[in-house]
Amino acid sequence: MMSPGLILLVALALIPFHAKAQFTRLSDAVKYRQSVFQVMSTHAQRIGAVAKGDAAFNRPEIETSAAIIEMLSKQLLTSFPPGSDMAPSKTKPEAWQELPQFKLNADQLQAAAAKLSSASKTGDLTAIKSAFNAVSQTCKACHDSYRNR
Amino acid sequence: MMSPGLILLVALALIPFHAKAQFTRLSDAVKYRQSVFQVMSTHAQRIGAVAKGDAAFNRPEIETSAAIIEMLSKQLLTSFPPGSDMAPSKTKPEAWQELPQFKLNADQLQAAAAKLSSASKTGDLTAIKSAFNAVSQTCKACHDSYRNR
Repeated sequence: MMSPGLILLVALALIPFHAKAQFTRLSDAVKYRQSVFQVMSTHAQRIGAVAKGDAAFNRPEIETSAAIIEMLSKQLLTSFPPGSDMAPSKTKPEAWQELPQFKLNADQLQAAAAKLSSASKTGDLTAIKSAFNAVSQTCKACHDSYRNR
Repeated sequence: MMSPGLILLVALALIPFHAKAQFTRLSDAVKYRQSVFQVMSTHAQRIGAVAKGDAAFNRPEIETSAAIIEMLSKQLLTSFPPGSDMAPSKTKPEAWQELPQFKLNADQLQAAAAKLSSASKTGDLTAIKSAFNAVSQTCKACHDSYRNR
């Protein structure tokens, strides 16, 4: 039987292997994740504008933006293979040094994004705002710890 | 009653208005669409590798990639507001000069991407390959006409 420590080591070893297999070159992973963040950010801004009252509430548009954020949030963890901290990456080395915490942040984003997507389907603006704030907090928490400005 | 010519003019006038409303600055539209293309290209390459036999067929991964391509294909048309042919855009001026043809290409991509997404859910690799080839052809057709290399 494996000890909890060994299980953790095996689990951590599997994450980067899978991530690396998805990209031919490490620089491709950087390009991909930066593009994913750009698209997510655009759609978060669109929902944010509605949440702040700066844009009209258009339910299908919010649903689409939330669905895109949800779908792309699931692609992030595999797009940080070890060694992909090359320019123009803004990811701090701590993301790989503290992989369990980094992974936890990614999981929290995924969970919050899934809730935002569900809320967007109800058409309840109050629920959407609340779920959107939760997503924004996961973005900020991870950026504060792991993104160079 | 509006003449067909007037209807076309009104329709064309509405497209850029909507597109412009989605982005604060025209340069944001360039960044957004280049990121969308980067993400779509990555997922198309993943499906392409399976289609060519260079990667193992993993049904959930193909479904995810196809769903991302389908969803993002619907975002393209509104991300080319008039005037957004600034660097680093690679879009030729003809995209705006020949808007009905450009729009037709975008529609063809959307239709092909929806079929690929449906095929991916069947798990039938032959159907997936065929639908993937149709998507690739719409990419190539539009790039040949409207993308600077």
